[in-house]
Amino acid sequence: MEKATQPRAFYGSFFHTPEYGSFEYLERALIEVGEDGAIERVIAHDDPNQAAALAKVREAGTLYELGEGRFGLPGFVDIHIHSPQWPQAALALDEPLYRWLDERTFPLESKFADVDFAKKVYSDLVDQLLARGSTTAVYLGSAHLEATVALAEICAERGQRTLVGKTVMDDPKANPDYYRDASPEQAVRDTETLIREVEAIGRKSRAGAWPVITPRFIPSCTDEVLRGLGNLAESTGAYVQTHCNEGQWEHDVVLERFGKTDPYALRDFGLLREHSIMAHCPYLTEEEGEMFAELGVAVAHCPTANSYFSSAVAPVQRFRSQGIHVGLGTDISGGYSPSMYENIRQAVLVSRLLETGVNAQLPPEERGGLGEGTRLSLVESFWLATAGGAEALGLPLATFEPGRAFDLQVIDVKRPDSDLTGFGVFDEPIDRLARILYLSTPDNVRQVFSQGVLVCDKDAR
Amino acid sequence: MEKATQPRAFYGSFFHTPEYGSFEYLERALIEVGEDGAIERVIAHDDPNQAAALAKVREAGTLYELGEGRFGLPGFVDIHIHSPQWPQAALALDEPLYRWLDERTFPLESKFADVDFAKKVYSDLVDQLLARGSTTAVYLGSAHLEATVALAEICAERGQRTLVGKTVMDDPKANPDYYRDASPEQAVRDTETLIREVEAIGRKSRAGAWPVITPRFIPSCTDEVLRGLGNLAESTGAYVQTHCNEGQWEHDVVLERFGKTDPYALRDFGLLREHSIMAHCPYLTEEEGEMFAELGVAVAHCPTANSYFSSAVAPVQRFRSQGIHVGLGTDISGGYSPSMYENIRQAVLVSRLLETGVNAQLPPEERGGLGEGTRLSLVESFWLATAGGAEALGLPLATFEPGRAFDLQVIDVKRPDSDLTGFGVFDEPIDRLARILYLSTPDNVRQVFSQGVLVCDKDAR
Ligand SMILES: [Zn+2]
Ligand SMILES: [Zn+2]
Repeated sequence: MEKATQPRAFYGSFFHTPEYGSFEYLERALIEVGEDGAIERVIAHDDPNQAAALAKVREAGTLYELGEGRFGLPGFVDIHIHSPQWPQAALALDEPLYRWLDERTFPLESKFADVDFAKKVYSDLVDQLLARGSTTAVYLGSAHLEATVALAEICAERGQRTLVGKTVMDDPKANPDYYRDASPEQAVRDTETLIREVEAIGRKSRAGAWPVITPRFIPSCTDEVLRGLGNLAESTGAYVQTHCNEGQWEHDVVLERFGKTDPYALRDFGLLREHSIMAHCPYLTEEEGEMFAELGVAVAHCPTANSYFSSAVAPVQRFRSQGIHVGLGTDISGGYSPSMYENIRQAVLVSRLLETGVNAQLPPEERGGLGEGTRLSLVESFWLATAGGAEALGLPLATFEPGRAFDLQVIDVKRPDSDLTGFGVFDEPIDRLARILYLSTPDNVRQVFSQGVLVCDKDAR
Repeated sequence: MEKATQPRAFYGSFFHTPEYGSFEYLERALIEVGEDGAIERVIAHDDPNQAAALAKVREAGTLYELGEGRFGLPGFVDIHIHSPQWPQAALALDEPLYRWLDERTFPLESKFADVDFAKKVYSDLVDQLLARGSTTAVYLGSAHLEATVALAEICAERGQRTLVGKTVMDDPKANPDYYRDASPEQAVRDTETLIREVEAIGRKSRAGAWPVITPRFIPSCTDEVLRGLGNLAESTGAYVQTHCNEGQWEHDVVLERFGKTDPYALRDFGLLREHSIMAHCPYLTEEEGEMFAELGVAVAHCPTANSYFSSAVAPVQRFRSQGIHVGLGTDISGGYSPSMYENIRQAVLVSRLLETGVNAQLPPEERGGLGEGTRLSLVESFWLATAGGAEALGLPLATFEPGRAFDLQVIDVKRPDSDLTGFGVFDEPIDRLARILYLSTPDNVRQVFSQGVLVCDKDAR
């Protein structure tokens, strides 16, 4: 899109969730966006100023109209995704974890030593995510510095906002010789370099790029590297991400190694800070949750991966009521789907089984469900995928409010293979939103804007 | 497609599951199909006769080549779907069941008294299902005779194989006055008429149409109508479908009314027969399961609806090991998705939580999971959606074997928003199949053939 025709105002009907638990439907609203891609004003249809404002941007040729049968949603914020695992999305999910890691994940990730291969995969991944409305992604890269920097560059080029880290895995006892950091020192040095280089990319990037300190998880790392990364987090203030309390094995191994659980071990290495992103956490106790809330640590809820690798479901409503920040992650390839839509649906579904338990041969009270107050509504799950992610990261994103970055996906509800109009029956805003969230296919997402700029246009194909 | 160019042979690479638990990859095979749309011969690539057979059909102009980067899957068999609930797919799933029924489902279904409305909705539904590869569907219609016959006609026109019933719900205490059968006698008479009319449509229809005796579920029906429908099943041999053992409420209500559980009550009314289709069944005990196996009764597993309405997951592996026939259903709109792909994924996911339980704060052995042997592999779930459905219905469908109907979906693994090629990494047949099943969008499904005839061609758009 030419600079000359850069839209500065968007007219149409929008859904978003400024507050957890409810949504707002901005019908025939005008959203004015600054040069920098941040929202300046949202002018409602019944605002007496809307007509004049519309006339002005129309005359200036900077108006973008969503058009009939189209609705705007905020861009999604995917806060946990392993970029080098994209080629194995959907694969070997029936295998036990050790085979999944040893025969698939490690050999695959090691290929990202080849930067050309990395660029090919990452270009496709970023395109596919944008095509599904994910305008912000928090990536765990491979253990390679160069490929990970290349990912940040690709995101900046394509207009995806990114937070990205080189995965650290230095323990020779826990990682294959062909794929690990050479030493704790090297891993810390590489992470320092990554921070510098990604920050430089961020300064040039319109939507922003941030480095993330990324130990894979405690069992992959030596004490030395965990300490080094904790110090680096302290000295640089960079984001931190890792896996935490994902499964029983991890829980037990960490407890045996340190005499304390995963979250306390991470805290004591200096890796739990405000907006640190801890993936999964189904095993997080109430007490550990309080500590998360106090420190401002965020949970990346990955509902699909919960079913495959956690033998449990993370209690998101409990986290929320404890005041913990929670966002949603696809967790490619512990989850198979690059689509936040599929993960929004999945978050709702697993929360229902967490509420009730699973085995009907037991009396309801013995089924192991957490009971009332556990389930996520669709709207709450939508919040997780948008405003929740923004809150987790501490970035002004994912709602249509002044001061927030304008990230938009335009949904066409009438596509040849996916008609979301419902034949005129049940046409309240909540119904329209539910159809969009439950039934959209990638084809329904027609345009995507990131920081005010068009980054994907399927109508132009 | 013109009669003259009707393909009679299909060349390409195909996946199917003739046996539960494994799949076959027919690489560069030639499948010859008779005038009637049944498979005559499958000629493998290493068969010395393939070259001559290929040359012959090529010369005759009756060869259809799937082409590079395309793979064939059998058409899916969706054995449980409520056709009049299509306009509310995805809606109100956060509501309790009684509101979902009283405020949504009953008012909506009652609209199908209007046959024009019914035709509009049903035409779209059948198109959407075909566009997702479902060449066979077992429908529960509304309580209206005329609209339900119209559905059977639409299926026949569009080439979808159908089993379809008018839903019976005659109890004035259990159903709203504006939407129920006028009397038990009327309900049985309407069902008799339906049987006659759908059988007539079936005789003209290439892919086939079968009537199904369809009490909604015991709590909607009087004893009189259940007895009448049981007698009708006995005298006509028609298929029977209903909901069985879906949730705790249903379980308790039936037990109180009859002093026996749902399955035994249905049996004693004569409604459990060979190939009777019982939806859901998470509450089915081992003893009840044995009875199902003896009678040849089939379970329609609806994994998405399990999470919303059953407070439990049906133990499919136990059913299978008891010798019960099991197929897969979308259960629109107790499930939101018309896609059997999404339900294949869902069946795998819920089986993992049924194995382990859900609440990580409990010790593993107290989480209420069924333990080892519970999970479904992706390939097993694919079997449920194809060969399992065929077995449930007792129809020769859904594998590429001589004598079976030739129903095919052609998957293009390289579409703009959905590249399933995996960058050349992990390219074994199981990997290709996993990508297709987990990551396909409707756009990847390019052509669909039913009983040998092209019924959906997205490339022609
Ligand atoms: Zn992860
Ligand atoms: Zn049903």
